[in-house]
Amino acid sequence: MSKSEVVELPLLDPEAVLPCCPPITAGELSAPDAERMAAMFKALSDPVRLRLFSKVASHPGGEACVCDIQDVGVSQPTVSHHLKKLREAGLLTSERRGTWVYYQVAPSVVAAMSAMLDLRPAAARS
Amino acid sequence: MSKSEVVELPLLDPEAVLPCCPPITAGELSAPDAERMAAMFKALSDPVRLRLFSKVASHPGGEACVCDIQDVGVSQPTVSHHLKKLREAGLLTSERRGTWVYYQVAPSVVAAMSAMLDLRPAAARS
Repeated sequence: MSKSEVVELPLLDPEAVLPCCPPITAGELSAPDAERMAAMFKALSDPVRLRLFSKVASHPGGEACVCDIQDVGVSQPTVSHHLKKLREAGLLTSERRGTWVYYQVAPSVVAAMSAMLDLRPAAARS
Repeated sequence: MSKSEVVELPLLDPEAVLPCCPPITAGELSAPDAERMAAMFKALSDPVRLRLFSKVASHPGGEACVCDIQDVGVSQPTVSHHLKKLREAGLLTSERRGTWVYYQVAPSVVAAMSAMLDLRPAAARS
């Protein structure tokens, strides 16, 4: 491959290539896509983790500080562990500001999961 | 409560009360709703199980026989185990016809999962 061909390739933002997968009714998932999507579903497969995720997603302003969301009946280290798992799966992003870490939902990742489970006919999807 | 008031209550089909949950941005999930939804996400958290689910969902006619979907690189008992987990979580239904068991996606359950992860503003949802 010549150098000019390499230069012509677009530089893709990893976020921009999501959603990876067509709706589940459109065709069989490939093994790599199944690995990727299963890891995202796994992040939501624990009730406490799912509640923490819903607390961030529904928090005013679309982001929450750990200090806002730790009343889920488990210890603070357990809350931190679950938030780390959600971040590693790509469902949350985080940012340290001063003393606190703030968490935001990663919209493109969550939209990809929702779209994959969308069973409506193509014409009904917006 | 008088007897007539009881009679006036509609008889709900358990399928008809799904989706259980508003979009995740609308508010914090209750602990019981989180338990229920986490179990559904858990069913899709294994790559082989997710591939089997996509094979049923994308099969012509919307249903598949075990004989149609067992080429996922695992043994037949493992396929049966995964299909049982998907059925127990409510994502698939099954029906025996003659020698074979046929599997169908449970549309209301899958739609509930998709709707819960729908981050679009209420006005953009159809």
